Amino acid sequence: MNESLHIKRLCLIGVGLIGGSLLRALRRAGVVDEIVGCGRNRTSLETALKLGVIDRIEQDPAKAVSAADMVVLAMPLGAMQGIFTAIAPALAADAVLTDVGSAKGCVVRAAEQAFAELPGGFVPGHPIAGTEKSGVESSFAELFDGRRVILTPTAQSSAMAISRTRAMWQACGAEVIEMGIAHHDEVLAATSHLPHMLAYSLVDMLARRDDSQEIFDYAASGFRDFTRIASSDPTMWHDIALANREALATLLDGFSLDLQKLAAAARAGNSDYLRTLFARAKQARDAFCETQEQGIKDEGRSKPNQ
Amino acid sequence: MNESLHIKRLCLIGVGLIGGSLLRALRRAGVVDEIVGCGRNRTSLETALKLGVIDRIEQDPAKAVSAADMVVLAMPLGAMQGIFTAIAPALAADAVLTDVGSAKGCVVRAAEQAFAELPGGFVPGHPIAGTEKSGVESSFAELFDGRRVILTPTAQSSAMAISRTRAMWQACGAEVIEMGIAHHDEVLAATSHLPHMLAYSLVDMLARRDDSQEIFDYAASGFRDFTRIASSDPTMWHDIALANREALATLLDGFSLDLQKLAAAARAGNSDYLRTLFARAKQARDAFCETQEQGIKDEGRSKPNQ
Repeated sequence: MNESLHIKRLCLIGVGLIGGSLLRALRRAGVVDEIVGCGRNRTSLETALKLGVIDRIEQDPAKAVSAADMVVLAMPLGAMQGIFTAIAPALAADAVLTDVGSAKGCVVRAAEQAFAELPGGFVPGHPIAGTEKSGVESSFAELFDGRRVILTPTAQSSAMAISRTRAMWQACGAEVIEMGIAHHDEVLAATSHLPHMLAYSLVDMLARRDDSQEIFDYAASGFRDFTRIASSDPTMWHDIALANREALATLLDGFSLDLQKLAAAARAGNSDYLRTLFARAKQARDAFCETQEQGIKDEGRSKPNQ
Repeated sequence: MNESLHIKRLCLIGVGLIGGSLLRALRRAGVVDEIVGCGRNRTSLETALKLGVIDRIEQDPAKAVSAADMVVLAMPLGAMQGIFTAIAPALAADAVLTDVGSAKGCVVRAAEQAFAELPGGFVPGHPIAGTEKSGVESSFAELFDGRRVILTPTAQSSAMAISRTRAMWQACGAEVIEMGIAHHDEVLAATSHLPHMLAYSLVDMLARRDDSQEIFDYAASGFRDFTRIASSDPTMWHDIALANREALATLLDGFSLDLQKLAAAARAGNSDYLRTLFARAKQARDAFCETQEQGIKDEGRSKPNQ
């Protein structure tokens, strides 16, 4: 499937969990000759070099992307604007440029600010994978196995660039699909950004209580799972919350209303309301898990080596 | 530690995940001679008998408790009132009576309705353990290993009854602590009941969308963990939400306000607000996990056989 993909020089800007895992997966697939790592954090870059995740360090973004045929941006969303501006004059005409940002509208807007015209090689992307950990030292080649990667091509994206970006992620074991930019941001606000806000908000509300130590002492394994995503990188989620603020704030307001209705139903002893809500949710969640497990099994069948 | 505990006849009313796991753990500890299973669901009882979890079935609660020196109530909270009324005339004078309900105020009120005076043998309890599964077929002896069990003795509970209930849970590998009834309900509303309401409400909100199938298709592993508790038994959680409605509704209202503030902060681009909230939550959640892991390690050292 990836026989045609061959990356001569890949430049990764932002060498963390996602970027590092991408590089490890590409090395595993044997489709990349040279990897240049770029980023603000010198220690991360040196760790990546020591781990063999990158071949060399270049801290100047413009120099880093020059002569690269594949450029991947994996910094926090808040840094996109600056990097686009820095690399715009240096990017090779036939380079493919993609990113891994969790919101896509803001990335495209940032690129529009930096480029006179959006390059044909630019294909925004978002791998639906991650852990609550951060940093290249937590990266691993299997992160994208059987996971989805959403590409949100712009009107200017070339067929060649879309095809190469798709092939890159497929080489990492991912399933690649395409989606409109605004639609991506709405779907991700619901399935990822909102849950993160709820987990952060819950832990924060409990942490602010006078009896917080005791509260956490009596929390059980359900609480541990429920709040796992509240251990995610705060800077990254700050950037995501602002980048996708409209879709997210609308959902937060709607959910807030739902909770008030639930509180009122509990106070009023409205058994039907509670029973219906819980049963409907359980059914949907069980169905979601069955679909996911089926997906994993299907993956397993088609990729016996993993 | 449990040399002194010897239960001649234990009667379990409600043979599900929690009750079944308790029985398996007591068998493992070798501290119980005979186990009588009672409940409304004949199939569950027969499964329990077949699995060797109970020794015999007695579907009449009054007959089931007669001559039992330990009676454990593990039905949904909504069934407590009826069972207390049914067993009150038949309970042996020296029997210990305890329960596993997730809210305690409502259990004590139900007992007060059924008994002219609360028996000295009555010690309300709550094991902080469980999974999202239900039924005796999902029960296992290790469920309480290293977990906490909260006892909330009443003013009438005898020292003997408290001591025997404590010894029973210790024999199951649990750490037993005592807490006031109202305080228990407040703490559990925060750490368990509220998270369950949030998980149910989130899945329900997404399931009601026109694009719910697509939404669930793009949900990642974080979503899976976050919503695991939404696969819990709806009837049980209906009962808990009503049983602890005051504490829970107050928290739901407070949390709803927090979400509105967060939505407003995102819309206003209030970086400080978001950054502070996320960082504080991450710190609290990481600290909580470290404490839990330390606890598990300590358990491991003191119980080499488990």
